[in-house]
Amino acid sequence: MFDNKANQSTSLDQIGEFKLIKHLTENFKIHHSSTLKGVGDDAAVLDLKQGQTVLTTDLLIEGIHFDLAYMPLKHLGYKAVMVNLSDVYAMNAVARQITVSLAVSNRFPLEALEELYAGIQLACDKHEIDLIGGDTTSSNKGLLISITALGQVTPEKVTYRSGAKPQDLLVVSGDLGASYMGLQVLEREKQVFLVNPQSQPDLTAYDYLIERQLKPEARKDIVVLLESLDVKPTAMIDISDGLSSEILHLCEDSEVGCNLFEEKIPLDPQLISTCEEFEISSTTVALSGGEDYELLFTIDQKDYEKIKGSPHLTVIGFISDESEGAHLITRSNQKVPLTAQGWKAFG
Amino acid sequence: MFDNKANQSTSLDQIGEFKLIKHLTENFKIHHSSTLKGVGDDAAVLDLKQGQTVLTTDLLIEGIHFDLAYMPLKHLGYKAVMVNLSDVYAMNAVARQITVSLAVSNRFPLEALEELYAGIQLACDKHEIDLIGGDTTSSNKGLLISITALGQVTPEKVTYRSGAKPQDLLVVSGDLGASYMGLQVLEREKQVFLVNPQSQPDLTAYDYLIERQLKPEARKDIVVLLESLDVKPTAMIDISDGLSSEILHLCEDSEVGCNLFEEKIPLDPQLISTCEEFEISSTTVALSGGEDYELLFTIDQKDYEKIKGSPHLTVIGFISDESEGAHLITRSNQKVPLTAQGWKAFG
Repeated sequence: MFDNKANQSTSLDQIGEFKLIKHLTENFKIHHSSTLKGVGDDAAVLDLKQGQTVLTTDLLIEGIHFDLAYMPLKHLGYKAVMVNLSDVYAMNAVARQITVSLAVSNRFPLEALEELYAGIQLACDKHEIDLIGGDTTSSNKGLLISITALGQVTPEKVTYRSGAKPQDLLVVSGDLGASYMGLQVLEREKQVFLVNPQSQPDLTAYDYLIERQLKPEARKDIVVLLESLDVKPTAMIDISDGLSSEILHLCEDSEVGCNLFEEKIPLDPQLISTCEEFEISSTTVALSGGEDYELLFTIDQKDYEKIKGSPHLTVIGFISDESEGAHLITRSNQKVPLTAQGWKAFG
Repeated sequence: MFDNKANQSTSLDQIGEFKLIKHLTENFKIHHSSTLKGVGDDAAVLDLKQGQTVLTTDLLIEGIHFDLAYMPLKHLGYKAVMVNLSDVYAMNAVARQITVSLAVSNRFPLEALEELYAGIQLACDKHEIDLIGGDTTSSNKGLLISITALGQVTPEKVTYRSGAKPQDLLVVSGDLGASYMGLQVLEREKQVFLVNPQSQPDLTAYDYLIERQLKPEARKDIVVLLESLDVKPTAMIDISDGLSSEILHLCEDSEVGCNLFEEKIPLDPQLISTCEEFEISSTTVALSGGEDYELLFTIDQKDYEKIKGSPHLTVIGFISDESEGAHLITRSNQKVPLTAQGWKAFG
């Protein structure tokens, strides 16, 4: 997938902020005519006359959101972009531009930032994103990445969290929980490594889970698919904090309830076997794991015929009246209230 | 100016990320019809069909860019917004929207963030800015603020760093160096305080300098003034890293040289007296101090008559051919090369 190079070492002190930004960004190409001026002035200049503009921003912090013990920098750069693009796609929009700001301690040599930017560039090329600016500064501890992403959408297509109606179907892309279990596997291997640095783990049994954790893919393809199927979701949100937390956001903003069917939640076989090995409920992982970067959306029932054939989409429940609340219908046909137990920023 | 309240103390752990954002932003009002959806979905939605959009982003980090020992949180919030608006104004644009992301350690209670947001809100109200989003997360050390600002400008008005021509006049708004000397005064008082916590310093002799450091004002008024005078700068940049560093940026991007006259550099009387007290050259402070957030721009000579009466603007030099280089003409009429010795992010 990615390979690592860390032979050379050039101190950031030697370079200075302005040369650093230029050095790291000079090979990025511009994909869109709406980007009039990218990196290199007081501000970027954009022509955003087409439709509406969506804008989102995220912070990723070493020790909170990632651990460089098992997260290669190139993957980190790729993932940091995907986390933001996922929010753009969750508006049913096409992502176009990003800014990337870094706070970085002097322990990182230039070559480490080059690795990080190689991952950012790969993400930009794959999703046709223009890097239009950013800020780079020193930190007194670790690495912090702040990304802002912009996208374009027509007023007819833009999809908020607030449009779900009773009887709508609840649909999710891909499968859930894999990223969280990938993290558990990596955490376990890190502990083994700390005890025995000579250990050579064989992680092939977990390769899908680890890839979902280290190199998630924002679902641009789903936005394209929905357009080609002529399906306009009534509400949409991306799954970053766990399925139940996102369902509750969507229900709250739409002022509706829902029934989610446990047996319908899409799970990868590798997730199921690894959950058995770790003696943890795969449903709990899917509901609360987080970092899936799948899309959760609602559609009018009349659109069911259009999506039912897609291997990327699964109907997992339906929307009800607000007064009925949000519930999980278990495999044993019990009805239990959904609670948000996703990843918490403070806790 | 600002008063402080820090009697109550509510732990961030008690609140959770989503409620925190809602709580901190619920009193912000929307000023612009171009802001279709602000805080509260996967992304903000904007209608940016008018003219061109400029976008800039900055990171401010505790211990690097600010010291909470003498920077009240309300001032910090205000200044963090100004730093970004200054970049928007430097494109000759009108600022419209910002996002604010925070990484904050658990040592900050909710009331501290409320103070910070009170300063952000004051800045937003004064400059008619819509807060449209952000991210809030915990940090393992200190406070970090990441702001992205957007503005609008017509294609005829947008002003890059790259348009200066030989014979153009070099113009600066306001006066220079005061913010840097304000910081020196505050640093000195901090040292006194550490030795004798009972000391009650009288800082009235430095009030202007301290206000320039703690509560800088981005020069929206200059953008408005230039419009009203029908002056379109040929190039413009904001002064965040010191006058000489910014002149060199402007000359490099415009492929020109310049002559800067030491005797023309605008200095406040309080700056001059404080520089004498600190036994430091006021010219050095003006050239290399930084954090002035004034605008530096070039105009065609034919526009001189339009600006010469303004108390806010000073002609400090003129543009020359690139081959002549960038020089300072001293009071003793010596010609010395300008060198960038501004604030460095890595050093």
